[in-house]
Amino acid sequence: MIALPPNLSCRDGHLYIGDCNTVTLANTFKTPLYVTDEERIRNRFLEYTRALNSRYPHCRILYATKANGNSTIIRILAEMGAGADVFSSGELQLALSAGMSPQTLLFNGSSKTTDDLIRAIQTGVRISLDSTDELYQLESVAAETGRTVEVSFRVNPAINAPTHPKIATGLASCKFGIAAEKIIPAYQAALSCSHLVPVGIHCHIGSQITAVEPFAREAEVLMELVAELHRRGVGFAFVDLGGGLGIPYNRAGNENAPSIDSYAEAVLPPCIAMCNELGIAPEIWIEPGRSLVCDSTILLTRVNSVKHAHKNFVNVDAGFNLLIRPAMYNSYHEVIVANKASEPAGDTYTITGPICETGDILAHDRELPIIVAGDLIAILDTGAYGFSMASQYNCRPRCAEVLVKGTQAELMRRAETLDDIRSTMVTPSWHKQ
Amino acid sequence: MIALPPNLSCRDGHLYIGDCNTVTLANTFKTPLYVTDEERIRNRFLEYTRALNSRYPHCRILYATKANGNSTIIRILAEMGAGADVFSSGELQLALSAGMSPQTLLFNGSSKTTDDLIRAIQTGVRISLDSTDELYQLESVAAETGRTVEVSFRVNPAINAPTHPKIATGLASCKFGIAAEKIIPAYQAALSCSHLVPVGIHCHIGSQITAVEPFAREAEVLMELVAELHRRGVGFAFVDLGGGLGIPYNRAGNENAPSIDSYAEAVLPPCIAMCNELGIAPEIWIEPGRSLVCDSTILLTRVNSVKHAHKNFVNVDAGFNLLIRPAMYNSYHEVIVANKASEPAGDTYTITGPICETGDILAHDRELPIIVAGDLIAILDTGAYGFSMASQYNCRPRCAEVLVKGTQAELMRRAETLDDIRSTMVTPSWHKQ
Repeated sequence: MIALPPNLSCRDGHLYIGDCNTVTLANTFKTPLYVTDEERIRNRFLEYTRALNSRYPHCRILYATKANGNSTIIRILAEMGAGADVFSSGELQLALSAGMSPQTLLFNGSSKTTDDLIRAIQTGVRISLDSTDELYQLESVAAETGRTVEVSFRVNPAINAPTHPKIATGLASCKFGIAAEKIIPAYQAALSCSHLVPVGIHCHIGSQITAVEPFAREAEVLMELVAELHRRGVGFAFVDLGGGLGIPYNRAGNENAPSIDSYAEAVLPPCIAMCNELGIAPEIWIEPGRSLVCDSTILLTRVNSVKHAHKNFVNVDAGFNLLIRPAMYNSYHEVIVANKASEPAGDTYTITGPICETGDILAHDRELPIIVAGDLIAILDTGAYGFSMASQYNCRPRCAEVLVKGTQAELMRRAETLDDIRSTMVTPSWHKQ
Repeated sequence: MIALPPNLSCRDGHLYIGDCNTVTLANTFKTPLYVTDEERIRNRFLEYTRALNSRYPHCRILYATKANGNSTIIRILAEMGAGADVFSSGELQLALSAGMSPQTLLFNGSSKTTDDLIRAIQTGVRISLDSTDELYQLESVAAETGRTVEVSFRVNPAINAPTHPKIATGLASCKFGIAAEKIIPAYQAALSCSHLVPVGIHCHIGSQITAVEPFAREAEVLMELVAELHRRGVGFAFVDLGGGLGIPYNRAGNENAPSIDSYAEAVLPPCIAMCNELGIAPEIWIEPGRSLVCDSTILLTRVNSVKHAHKNFVNVDAGFNLLIRPAMYNSYHEVIVANKASEPAGDTYTITGPICETGDILAHDRELPIIVAGDLIAILDTGAYGFSMASQYNCRPRCAEVLVKGTQAELMRRAETLDDIRSTMVTPSWHKQ
């Protein structure tokens, strides 16, 4: 039996999210459907604030917006006191619209356009620089606007955290950041820029990391650099440890992920010790995405047909157009037959989507209750990198997202139609009749 | 030096597509930008029709809409006489709107909803069935509408074509189709359905296949089944060989792909021989996508910054949000510095996008002219599975698509804005102030 996240339960044979019956939600709002439980996000955020602030009073959580860019979710986190890690002008705008103050945001990214930089300067947000090339670009843009910009550099700590290579961002070989041994000259260059003030340092070693040791090592590397830079005259307003804490996707297999508390216990003590030694008290920032929002959400998808071939294929109405992680990263997501949630396993099934590619498989060889056309499947842990990576591949409109709170359930994103897909298409004049 | 496709050329140091200067196009329409050359698509289509019709008069080309779903491209192909392989209600609607007649379309797919089936029946399109489960579903829907529906089955020929496993669709282990040894009972079941008439057979062994032998074997397997089914009373209006012909993405490495003519020479003779033997003359359908539209298109992207770390990273404004093939399938795409198209290589560069993932790399370790911020990069062969798989990941609006014809250049899709991304978001009532 799967250890469900606390917001999911089985009642009278049906899967519930919050106090809402998923079978009713699917009938009301149609499938496919993302369903997010607001309380779960609030509880995870509270877990973070407690774990962090009980150890060090000047902590700040910057939500990694890319995990789930729905503006209602950003607004919930803003209300609770979160800032945001934003990676594009679009994410910056969403965070500001949600009521976050510019001082609680960090504009990240390894490839920013001049327009991105201008917009960031105008809004007063701090900017994390990825290279000295970008430093001089920003200095020149800042000089034109006549403003002074607070910046940090992203350090590449050369730490090999155990995760999927496509999302391991702290390796020496990856595209992000400046190697630790080159960071001192970068800050010296920043100190000599007349429109830039280095006020922080930033690091991020990857995503879906399920051990705390890499985070502890990262904190140590970073604080050594802070000490060195402090001696050279950098005044630290913030030290940003990035995000990356993983979650246990394989619940049936008893996959483990560190608790938020053990994460805090791993990263904060080295930071606090060094701050005390240096006599400084910068804000310590962390940038959780997945660990904040992922298990709040399920993807409901209807069974169109069951094919008994060399395997049992369950053909559902959601595919990698809506959830690309299994096809792209070979990711595991737990599957529950939502209308038969208390029935015992009866056969082995592979859950396949409607996309015209062999790789469109959401789950391989799962032991599940006997499945027939019309049944409802719930894919768990889809709140992060689910809708945010969705496409309209195969000319499929993207689905709706529903937010539930207790027994309340309302749309936070309507389903697209074919007209939405066509809305940006225009006809060149020589093709007009 | 790269062997450019015939629609690309270097003039006065700039890359041209058709008779349009890519540097001018990028300045006019902004980057990132997909640019498609109409003449190239027309020429590829003519190559197909000549190769096919010179060998067998009853051939039909069904464009695989999923490769590129822009309605202008579908309309161009419709004007030239193409039908379409459609894989969703959306693709069906686009094909009909482009003026294609229902008799030239095949509704494919392994996971169709009841709504899909109803819509297909209403439009009079033929349906390719993926399982007997789906057969009975369709029979029941057809009975309700009181119509008779012409159908085919998709055969899984258990042919291992050399391509990426995620797009090899003819393997015994894949999700698509009915195993050849089970196809006779499936047709017998169809013959006994009162609202369905089997009139064709359908097969598709994969995508980006760069040898003709697998196609020849597929044709032989399929025609053996046609013979057997003919003897059992199935009247064949069409035999659909599917698509899958590859293109030479690695032009610098002299990658080879079969010509359209050698493809036709491999697949048609076995079909013609068996048809003659049986005394039948069905239409022979093929479903090209990539080989029709891929090399018509380039993706133009601007260099934001160049980072000299352990490697030279060229940070551009397009990433796997716009072209996911390199990140998802490890695909190779040729790269040209469009404003320095005749300059010799000066260094080795890795082209990286703006997405917050280590895997967001468009091209690894390419020998290119010295690159600086502001330069313009062209990614070649992006007409298939480029925009059609694009997402708004990292809250990035999708870019525009321009169609060129000779010296003419106009939008066939406008760039999205942040408002487009927000247009489907709604606020649950308890979050309204």
